[in-house]
Amino acid sequence: RTRMINLPHAGWVRSVRTQKAHIFLHVNDGSSLQSLQVVAGAELNDQLLTFGSAVEVTGILKKSPHQKQAVELEAQRIHVIGECDPVDFPFKIKERHNLEYLRQFPHLRCRTNAFSSLLRIRSEATAAFHSFFKDNGFVQIHTPVITSNDCEGAGELFQVEPSSVGDAHREFFFSVPAFLTVSGQLHLEVMSGAFSRVYTFGPTFRAENSQSRRHLAEFYMVEAELGFLRSLNDLTKVMEDMFKSTTEQVLARCVEDVDLFHSKEVFFKALNVILSTFRMSYSEAVEILGRSTENFTFPWGCDLKTEHEKHLVKHCGNVPVFVTDYPYRLKPFYARANQDPPQNTAAAVDLLVPGVGELCGGSLREERLDVLTAHLEDAGLEDTYDWYLDLRRFGSVPHGGFGLGFERFLQCVLGVDNIKDVIPFPRYSHSCLL
Amino acid sequence: RTRMINLPHAGWVRSVRTQKAHIFLHVNDGSSLQSLQVVAGAELNDQLLTFGSAVEVTGILKKSPHQKQAVELEAQRIHVIGECDPVDFPFKIKERHNLEYLRQFPHLRCRTNAFSSLLRIRSEATAAFHSFFKDNGFVQIHTPVITSNDCEGAGELFQVEPSSVGDAHREFFFSVPAFLTVSGQLHLEVMSGAFSRVYTFGPTFRAENSQSRRHLAEFYMVEAELGFLRSLNDLTKVMEDMFKSTTEQVLARCVEDVDLFHSKEVFFKALNVILSTFRMSYSEAVEILGRSTENFTFPWGCDLKTEHEKHLVKHCGNVPVFVTDYPYRLKPFYARANQDPPQNTAAAVDLLVPGVGELCGGSLREERLDVLTAHLEDAGLEDTYDWYLDLRRFGSVPHGGFGLGFERFLQCVLGVDNIKDVIPFPRYSHSCLL
Repeated sequence: RTRMINLPHAGWVRSVRTQKAHIFLHVNDGSSLQSLQVVAGAELNDQLLTFGSAVEVTGILKKSPHQKQAVELEAQRIHVIGECDPVDFPFKIKERHNLEYLRQFPHLRCRTNAFSSLLRIRSEATAAFHSFFKDNGFVQIHTPVITSNDCEGAGELFQVEPSSVGDAHREFFFSVPAFLTVSGQLHLEVMSGAFSRVYTFGPTFRAENSQSRRHLAEFYMVEAELGFLRSLNDLTKVMEDMFKSTTEQVLARCVEDVDLFHSKEVFFKALNVILSTFRMSYSEAVEILGRSTENFTFPWGCDLKTEHEKHLVKHCGNVPVFVTDYPYRLKPFYARANQDPPQNTAAAVDLLVPGVGELCGGSLREERLDVLTAHLEDAGLEDTYDWYLDLRRFGSVPHGGFGLGFERFLQCVLGVDNIKDVIPFPRYSHSCLL
Repeated sequence: RTRMINLPHAGWVRSVRTQKAHIFLHVNDGSSLQSLQVVAGAELNDQLLTFGSAVEVTGILKKSPHQKQAVELEAQRIHVIGECDPVDFPFKIKERHNLEYLRQFPHLRCRTNAFSSLLRIRSEATAAFHSFFKDNGFVQIHTPVITSNDCEGAGELFQVEPSSVGDAHREFFFSVPAFLTVSGQLHLEVMSGAFSRVYTFGPTFRAENSQSRRHLAEFYMVEAELGFLRSLNDLTKVMEDMFKSTTEQVLARCVEDVDLFHSKEVFFKALNVILSTFRMSYSEAVEILGRSTENFTFPWGCDLKTEHEKHLVKHCGNVPVFVTDYPYRLKPFYARANQDPPQNTAAAVDLLVPGVGELCGGSLREERLDVLTAHLEDAGLEDTYDWYLDLRRFGSVPHGGFGLGFERFLQCVLGVDNIKDVIPFPRYSHSCLL
């Protein structure tokens, strides 16, 4: 079957092959990894047809004689609409530049196969999270970026003021100090007073002076809160369902793009991973670490570090591991006390995954006014969080929630080592390009 | 048909009615405006069953004898899980508090019918924009919040630095001054060098010292860029399709919630509006303003103010109006020159809508390296935007895009006067609650 196409096919040249009578182009428009093969008579050759140049091709779309593609375009006219000097262009034809090299060109790296695949996958993964929540009756809330809370008192906050204000003029724009959010949780808890299920998916910020492969100053979090929820098991179930459903959707919808990151073998291993998960308590984790041959010194009460998380994941056969019931004093003020002396744990759970470590953290929230008030008074925070106590004064319900680091999710699913390679424009200390 | 329900029905009490032998409760769980009617014997009455309290009700779900609801719950057990003191609770049963009053309680206002409806509509509208773009083959890009561009040199920027840095220690965290984004456009244009269609939907910021009903310091923008696009008409068509498709979807999926904001009459008028739009050039707009009985003094070359925008919308019969081809010197550096002396207009278009004025602004972007370079040199910006010129040096394509103010969209569709009432946590000068 042959059909006439009136509109020109447009895209960027990915390869040029010249034969005696013919030229062959691969033209890519970004809609998929696959380029359109263009076949033209040698008379249509043009020295401007270089790697990276933009072209419009008019011709006849035909069934291709080759197995690699279903169709090819027999060109009648090729128009170079945007030139690309092969000497100046930092990417070279047929060279596979590594991700670190690409990072130097944040305005151009999307033009490579590797990074355009990543961006299509990121877009599909974003859609996968939105559909998981929509299908399960969650209301999406745009929690604010600028906030007067410092949430967990984390300290590593960015502060915000108009740039035009001179140092002499020291009035706050918002009348109070304002920061970039580190989590939308407290704002989601506000919404848990009216909706049974809410979520948010947006940028969060840490002013950490870190150049690590696992941290960014600006990154995306998926956070959810569920009302009328009483058990940590029920919360863990939702976290697991979300992780499996979104991973499956990404792997199913981006087969070709994912394949660029993984061999088929790794791909099926990934599929396998999402079908099996493991659960253990923090106390069991401490025992496992104590029995390990790696000689960890890990007394009960300490916080798990990345090395411990990776060991636990490995110990369980490289599948996702849920660790539950952490020491109460390790967790922020809002975590629900299990009131199980002498240990005193909190109803909190972390999801650890292969290659990444902590991907997701959640807890039941303290809904009991008396317990929460006492805890905030101990910390001298009862005035700061008086509005938060109001949520427990008026129609308080048992509830819980979690947050997932979206970039870490992509790192885990794609096996990408450096977090800077899974976000369009990475921001970290000493780097804010464009 | 009667069926046993094992799980308790949970929600917040919206009304309590007591009769001799029975009590009637309306219990709402936030999934819709409609509450579940609970019927119980008088012996289940409890003085803690107050407006705003949280309850779990076990019982039998039955076909309701009343027309107002399909089912009702015959209660066997009612458990008050979260009390709500009617004296302290700022919202009173059967009172319809106005939106300005509600604004004082950002942590509680979602518990009112008006604001919970708004939040469900906002969530559905967000989904409507995502599906419009997904259905039309756009790749979603998370453009950065923190940026070292000041984009249009607008001046009204928020600057970002770690809060812990003392005044003495004056090194920038990112090595350069960093700001909150005012638009994702330039970052989307980066992506237009690899994808034919991209969009972003996220928070943007202006440090404007304004308390107006149309401005916020933090608001949401929907922005899109389309490659291989040559005519302003084609761009306008996409803007129109998006506006119609999303408005229709919101009106169709949130009938009950929208009805709380509009009478049925206004609802159908709104439906009518989205089916008819009007187009005129800026020059025609100037003529219309000149002929108006309102005695505008409006020489060619001035920028339209809100009063002018509203007049034009009214003049066209209160339908959305596209105004095209503005004076070149009014538009930012990236707008494409029409090169039509003596007027010298730019290929730019604004969408003006009833009740709001400017909702959406777009333009073709200057893709010609020589024209853009000359323009940036005139402004002394060629070094600052050298990376942007790179986009034109390597495989440049004709392209265009637009941005839509998401809160203004909600104001327009719902007829809400104040922008602070269509966002969960409004931020503006002197106000950053929670």
